[in-house]
Amino acid sequence: MDIVVLGSGNVATHLAQALKANGESVMQVYSQNLNHAKILADVVDAEAIDTFEALALDADLYIISVKDDAIEAVAEQLKSVSGLVVHTSGTTDVRALSSHVKHAGVFYPLQTFSKTKTVSFENIPLCLEAIEPAQMQFLKSVAYKLSRSVYELDGEKRKALHLAAVFACNFPNHLYAMANQILEQHGLDFDIIRPLISETANKVMNDLPETVQTGPAIRGDEHTINQHLNMLNNLPELQGIYQTLSNSIKLTKK
Amino acid sequence: MDIVVLGSGNVATHLAQALKANGESVMQVYSQNLNHAKILADVVDAEAIDTFEALALDADLYIISVKDDAIEAVAEQLKSVSGLVVHTSGTTDVRALSSHVKHAGVFYPLQTFSKTKTVSFENIPLCLEAIEPAQMQFLKSVAYKLSRSVYELDGEKRKALHLAAVFACNFPNHLYAMANQILEQHGLDFDIIRPLISETANKVMNDLPETVQTGPAIRGDEHTINQHLNMLNNLPELQGIYQTLSNSIKLTKK
Repeated sequence: MDIVVLGSGNVATHLAQALKANGESVMQVYSQNLNHAKILADVVDAEAIDTFEALALDADLYIISVKDDAIEAVAEQLKSVSGLVVHTSGTTDVRALSSHVKHAGVFYPLQTFSKTKTVSFENIPLCLEAIEPAQMQFLKSVAYKLSRSVYELDGEKRKALHLAAVFACNFPNHLYAMANQILEQHGLDFDIIRPLISETANKVMNDLPETVQTGPAIRGDEHTINQHLNMLNNLPELQGIYQTLSNSIKLTKK
Repeated sequence: MDIVVLGSGNVATHLAQALKANGESVMQVYSQNLNHAKILADVVDAEAIDTFEALALDADLYIISVKDDAIEAVAEQLKSVSGLVVHTSGTTDVRALSSHVKHAGVFYPLQTFSKTKTVSFENIPLCLEAIEPAQMQFLKSVAYKLSRSVYELDGEKRKALHLAAVFACNFPNHLYAMANQILEQHGLDFDIIRPLISETANKVMNDLPETVQTGPAIRGDEHTINQHLNMLNNLPELQGIYQTLSNSIKLTKK
């Protein structure tokens, strides 16, 4: 199968590498910035391009993995291709593509990617959407080469999932950073809290989070809560968040 | 070494089992509720007691692992023992013990324990405090039998660590529960988001969280933020928290 990747960010990079590693051929990597395209193209043995004139028109799959607000502009340039065009966005409607290209779909990997850290696609949920059943079959065949975890989700469900991901990933990471702020202020290394972070995530691999909540707020331990709030007098930002989240946890008490 | 465990909750249970598994002898398990004491005592081949009259006075180590506000009352009953008395609390001052018993210390395992899930102590940071150097040596010898990760922390540092743990464990778990609320509302299973939770924690095992923040807030993607806030109109509790945490993440942008 011949694939063109449009974009050179984290998702484009990890996805192109995973496709290549699973025997697919990445023909071209497009980026507005030719150097960015080249970096990824070199890794996956593809041609780097920075104009749509150079675009191969006969690929089987075009993966648009650019910033959400740039997706439609890229799709407009793909009017004349006959292969399937997908984007990798959690929040963008498939119509951003289908109003421009012949065959449109979505290939949304639910994961947090960083440039440096490699991730195994095997366990990454791949969320697919397609306008036509035949295209869905085609997308599934690609997805199952990369992952054991493939979901067929309409746009509404995919957007809800993306929102849930902010709560499950972006916000917890921010709270880890706040924990580190407290540790640093007391001359403690982040290392000391890493096993706790790991186990907290591990606990919900089999149980549901609402059944394993611990800490002063769920115990209704006002003495500790007040002690903590006092300790945060010099970190008002963290104090506000401590108060808000503790109140929210208390509301879940039966 | 002979050990008496006072308490039968999660920490007492996991700690007593780990000590037993590492060749220590748990002589007695005390609980106000004899049945609770028996359940744990049976597991570690100890005697279950529910009165202080029955307490062995010649143990080497007494571990008080009860609710914070009950620690001092238990310590008052241990005036006549000559062994080292420790509590396992992150927030309680060692003086809650030292004003009552001959030798006082703290043995605080930084981890989130649940009744059902077993945890390996090997990677659990054990935070120790003792009044006398000889007692610290003794506590360390016990701690290193259980874990590779042993810290000597004064009360102030331990309390800061406990506060950081609320941010790193209790709050993230609550956010996982909120993610599940959103998923449930859209007929999606929590399974779909488990790999993301796992990887989010994994990412900070080597990097610092402030260097790997992702999501709409750190990108300054107001379009997605507003879309998410609209989707939460029927969940005002989550909407407020989304707003608060997104604003807080934006403040960290350079």
